Amino acid sequence: MEAMVLGIGGMMPMPGRFLTSVLLRHNGSVTLFDCGEGTQVPLKASGFGIGRIQRFVLSHLHADHLTGVPGMLMLLAQAEPDHVVDIIGLPDVNNYVRATRQVLRFYLSYDLNYVDIEAKGGSLPGEGFTLNYLPLSHTTPTLGFTYVEDERPGRFSVDKARELGVPEGPQWGLLQNGETVEVDGRAITPADVLGPPRRGRRFAYVTDTAPCDNIGKLLENADLAVIEGMFTDDHAEEAREKKHLTARQTAEFVAASGCKKALLVHVSPRYKNNDLEQLEAQAREVCDRVSLARPLDRVEIPLPD
Amino acid sequence: MEAMVLGIGGMMPMPGRFLTSVLLRHNGSVTLFDCGEGTQVPLKASGFGIGRIQRFVLSHLHADHLTGVPGMLMLLAQAEPDHVVDIIGLPDVNNYVRATRQVLRFYLSYDLNYVDIEAKGGSLPGEGFTLNYLPLSHTTPTLGFTYVEDERPGRFSVDKARELGVPEGPQWGLLQNGETVEVDGRAITPADVLGPPRRGRRFAYVTDTAPCDNIGKLLENADLAVIEGMFTDDHAEEAREKKHLTARQTAEFVAASGCKKALLVHVSPRYKNNDLEQLEAQAREVCDRVSLARPLDRVEIPLPD
Repeated sequence: MEAMVLGIGGMMPMPGRFLTSVLLRHNGSVTLFDCGEGTQVPLKASGFGIGRIQRFVLSHLHADHLTGVPGMLMLLAQAEPDHVVDIIGLPDVNNYVRATRQVLRFYLSYDLNYVDIEAKGGSLPGEGFTLNYLPLSHTTPTLGFTYVEDERPGRFSVDKARELGVPEGPQWGLLQNGETVEVDGRAITPADVLGPPRRGRRFAYVTDTAPCDNIGKLLENADLAVIEGMFTDDHAEEAREKKHLTARQTAEFVAASGCKKALLVHVSPRYKNNDLEQLEAQAREVCDRVSLARPLDRVEIPLPD
Repeated sequence: MEAMVLGIGGMMPMPGRFLTSVLLRHNGSVTLFDCGEGTQVPLKASGFGIGRIQRFVLSHLHADHLTGVPGMLMLLAQAEPDHVVDIIGLPDVNNYVRATRQVLRFYLSYDLNYVDIEAKGGSLPGEGFTLNYLPLSHTTPTLGFTYVEDERPGRFSVDKARELGVPEGPQWGLLQNGETVEVDGRAITPADVLGPPRRGRRFAYVTDTAPCDNIGKLLENADLAVIEGMFTDDHAEEAREKKHLTARQTAEFVAASGCKKALLVHVSPRYKNNDLEQLEAQAREVCDRVSLARPLDRVEIPLPD
């Protein structure tokens, strides 16, 4: 499982700074979280396989998270994917994609599957993962997401297998794969030789929001979180008015959660690139698991123990 | 009168290459020709005053000419213009802007005035200029444009004024400004002392199109033209299929017209930046008044003699 932040900007694309968007590669497919104006540009620069994008997950109906979708859909068409592409968002968000497609009348070589999700939160099962979503607190209905890999089988106990008389060989593999085997007329089940199931990897995507309880829930036990930290302390009042987070507030949520690593995104256009260290510094005064996202870095999400 | 090409790309924005869009400053206002995804980025880098944009002129219903409009309208709102902004395009183009605004529900601090123009061509009078448009030959109805400055009064003839006994002084100024004056009981009219009206400056914007007669009409006597030259000779067949021009074809039109200076834009994404010299070279084999547009260069359009 690997993530790549394509841009870290909030509100509008700037020279040298694209809008917040994240690619998540897992299990042979790619999920794109948000897609503002220009997102296709860093994607092209990234070398990440465009044709694998299987779903767009869209957080809310603000232009800086959406207006790159038409261009990205057309770009994807050039890769001629042989899969359906899911558009996952609130009904008003999906209506934007539907309406744009209708008025621009662009041809796509693949089918879109609109998945309208509810503002109150919920879950969507996928192949090898579940996408969970919870409402955030913004100026328009907004969702935060976790992408949670399915549980893995528990650890295989060589000692137990030997104790039960299962000979080393193909039967060990069958048990590891969840199948029951027969040894001297006795049925040995996976539960006899495997430990408890182990949790899968957990990725969180949280933007745009004022402080609220669901931020903590989304960050809980995340192996990687990409989360807004839009303002410095000096502009805490602006953050409050616009229903965004300061980098320090973000770090407080990260500190209080079991989140292992958090990357700040959606920085305000008022900060020049040279000023962004300040956001990171203020966050790290609170929690050293937070850092500023670096566009186009590949971030491997390791398996938990 | 000054033009600035913001981007020279066709089809999609690329790393290091924004989509074709041109700013034209004249008479205290700014006209933006086309606005594809990402156009606000080079505009911000240009230092050109954003708040002066008074009209968007949109050539046709293809995403690479339009999907930057919502972001640009929102950017313009931050400058809080005190004027109405015209959206000038074919009805289906203007419907895209209307629909996007409706589904994204974004607030603007100023009014939009949709000017639906006809695919068969026509003229729109403006303050100090006329915007003329003619159909081009593309895969969807597409318009090419000329922005023509109003005629200037003819030259004032000092000899004639003296001959008619008009004393040097305020009366000369009145005549130059088009007013009739009285000298010794005789009425002296501007026509008595001014030469024939002199033509104003002429700017042409021509993209996307296969070869057609209207290209020549649009280029005629242009002081500056920004015109597509999408393909090299090697890809002439692709140009024909997609209804675009090769740089050489463009130069042939320029050579046959009285166009003083033409800048090539809308280059194919298949060419890397290092390959673009070839487009220019092939055009210049035909006509040395053609060159590749350089994004963010300010191009002064001088008064004709």
